[in-house]
Amino acid sequence: MSEIIATYQIYGKPGKLESKLESIALGLTVGSWTDLHAVDQEQLRKHKGRVVSVKEFFDDEHPSRFGEVRAEGKIAYPSANFTADLPAILTTVFGKLSLDGEIKLLDLEFDSDITAHFPGPRFGISQIRESIEVFDRPLVMSIFKGVIGRNLPFLNEQLKNQALGGVDLVKDDEILFENELTPFDKRIVSSREILQNVYEETGHRTLYAVNLTGRTSKLRDQARRAKELGADALLFNVHTYGLDVLHELAEDDEIALPFMAHPAFSGAFISSDFYGLSSSLALGKLVRYAGADFSLFPSPYGSVAMPRNETLRIAQALREESALAAAFPVPSAGIHPGLVPKLIKDFGTDCIINAGGGVHGHPHGAIGGGKAFRQAVDAVLNGITLEEAASQHKELKSALDLWGVE
Amino acid sequence: MSEIIATYQIYGKPGKLESKLESIALGLTVGSWTDLHAVDQEQLRKHKGRVVSVKEFFDDEHPSRFGEVRAEGKIAYPSANFTADLPAILTTVFGKLSLDGEIKLLDLEFDSDITAHFPGPRFGISQIRESIEVFDRPLVMSIFKGVIGRNLPFLNEQLKNQALGGVDLVKDDEILFENELTPFDKRIVSSREILQNVYEETGHRTLYAVNLTGRTSKLRDQARRAKELGADALLFNVHTYGLDVLHELAEDDEIALPFMAHPAFSGAFISSDFYGLSSSLALGKLVRYAGADFSLFPSPYGSVAMPRNETLRIAQALREESALAAAFPVPSAGIHPGLVPKLIKDFGTDCIINAGGGVHGHPHGAIGGGKAFRQAVDAVLNGITLEEAASQHKELKSALDLWGVE
Repeated sequence: MSEIIATYQIYGKPGKLESKLESIALGLTVGSWTDLHAVDQEQLRKHKGRVVSVKEFFDDEHPSRFGEVRAEGKIAYPSANFTADLPAILTTVFGKLSLDGEIKLLDLEFDSDITAHFPGPRFGISQIRESIEVFDRPLVMSIFKGVIGRNLPFLNEQLKNQALGGVDLVKDDEILFENELTPFDKRIVSSREILQNVYEETGHRTLYAVNLTGRTSKLRDQARRAKELGADALLFNVHTYGLDVLHELAEDDEIALPFMAHPAFSGAFISSDFYGLSSSLALGKLVRYAGADFSLFPSPYGSVAMPRNETLRIAQALREESALAAAFPVPSAGIHPGLVPKLIKDFGTDCIINAGGGVHGHPHGAIGGGKAFRQAVDAVLNGITLEEAASQHKELKSALDLWGVE
Repeated sequence: MSEIIATYQIYGKPGKLESKLESIALGLTVGSWTDLHAVDQEQLRKHKGRVVSVKEFFDDEHPSRFGEVRAEGKIAYPSANFTADLPAILTTVFGKLSLDGEIKLLDLEFDSDITAHFPGPRFGISQIRESIEVFDRPLVMSIFKGVIGRNLPFLNEQLKNQALGGVDLVKDDEILFENELTPFDKRIVSSREILQNVYEETGHRTLYAVNLTGRTSKLRDQARRAKELGADALLFNVHTYGLDVLHELAEDDEIALPFMAHPAFSGAFISSDFYGLSSSLALGKLVRYAGADFSLFPSPYGSVAMPRNETLRIAQALREESALAAAFPVPSAGIHPGLVPKLIKDFGTDCIINAGGGVHGHPHGAIGGGKAFRQAVDAVLNGITLEEAASQHKELKSALDLWGVE
């Protein structure tokens, strides 16, 4: 029988947690059980939720609070109870329950029947790599900066400099919406020309992710138009729209562009230790299931820092063996070239090194910033220290002088 | 100049909070300011965010933690920076910022220019009242119970009994999705027949809110079909879809049905004291702006309890004077007839008294449960105690014997 298994963190009296989970498993499925007639039980058996496991944590890291212990419990929900879309699944496993005191949804396990409804990333890590013919190193991405209220020549100049620095991807600022100065269509058309010129000049190919925004029902046509205009990829603030919106866009064969999921708004439901969703579920597994080829999340290093273990779990959820293609982890915020050794140690080569200030704030501007990142990546992959490499590369030297090595 | 004002709760060192807010106001709009040339400042002035006010709380209720105080700060975001849709607005005011440590979005103030993009509830309290010709008392609603895995005759019987008890509305269980036993279309068609029969038999009109579910892009057609089939109202798990999805459905003139916003999943982002959205913003103002005619939220009385002050603020956000029609507050969970005096004292007459177990669990079944609620409402409005009224009404007496008066 097909089912989804949800893992929750809950608190309660030691020894009382199984009955608490049992009442959740019934309450969110058939309602009640022991007081049903045998004939009703027979009819409802295939709809009944069940407790799969309960594990109480008594260790020092998880002291009891007010006589309650932390526990992780798994409940299986028969897929006979819901349709295979994320709104139905989230309503089933964490609808009313999300309002029921201190309870956090840590993970969802989808079996193959349910997974079949989720095509996942259309391109994934391997096809993105093929498209830009870079196979053996992390990709480097930079972000437009300070573009609100600016005109197209301003953006074009920024894009050109970023590309000349040798970054593999440039993404829109997520707060850049449709506007008269730099409309969506024109950003796509002019970026193509600029990036083509840089390619002809340098032989380096940079992709541009344009921010897909606007009313929900218009997104599909807009994304299809982006495809026709030759866009490379779409940035999307998925958590302000809904996961199913991304899911529908990503599976649309007439769009067929890589999607970059931005974590905007997700802090509202992943930040608490006691409520909401785990970050690895929200920014890892669920965006991958919804079809994101890239997922941005706060790096463990910057000012907007997320605990390192959490970021590693997000990366794992994006890349672990699965029926779905792997998606690129994009640890973001506070990244400068001196962090590249740590980034590669933590996230391996199948990740995106993404910087805003660390590119634009370089003493030689965005061109220097991009070069410094690429030099840092090459150094790490060639097994030499950044300091050694800096003696050969003035851009990296300037970056290390400014930001240091961590 | 049109703008949105966001109110945040933040923590920080006393006297340092204004500069913290200032850096947020710049970071989320023009990026930087003092280091810009005068000509750039001129160009960007109309896009610059500004701190409106900062208020630090030193009182006993809000002690300082680790040398930090709680503060509420307001930032104004020029609407030149975003399009007038909720994904753009939420990304602007609480996108990246939601991930930036302990910060909670308490309120958003929309000026008339922005409000013009939000038609709000199509019917609202007054037109819902007109449609059922009940003007002077809270409406009574009951919820289907234990319907997963059940067939249409089972649901029909439940619906009939609920209506015979005299409730004004019956809503679907939010976890009932499209399924073979009780499909959406058939639920609508059979409910019409049943409720018409009850009306002819008793003169009492009951409305049924059917659960609108499925893939996002199909919802509009499905809702239009519901309208054609004669549905009374739509229940919608808005927080698993996205607020803009509700907004688009509610403003569709070919749907033109009342929307009942269910709070499923909202606990993920309203429960923490330190992160996410205030419940009055999420379940009050925003669902009203998105067009909900009814908003369900946890009552302050039941097992899934929300602090009373919070529930009152939600009700206020749904009903306060505004360019938008007022929406019905629906405090839910743990409601039984003995709570009616308290409910009316707290929420007034312009609210919905909503019960599941408090109707179905009545010793005389759902018919008795509905009657007991109606009797309790009449007693309160006539200024007599429930105990007094129970001496005249056996259903109310049974309810009070079972659940007591609170």
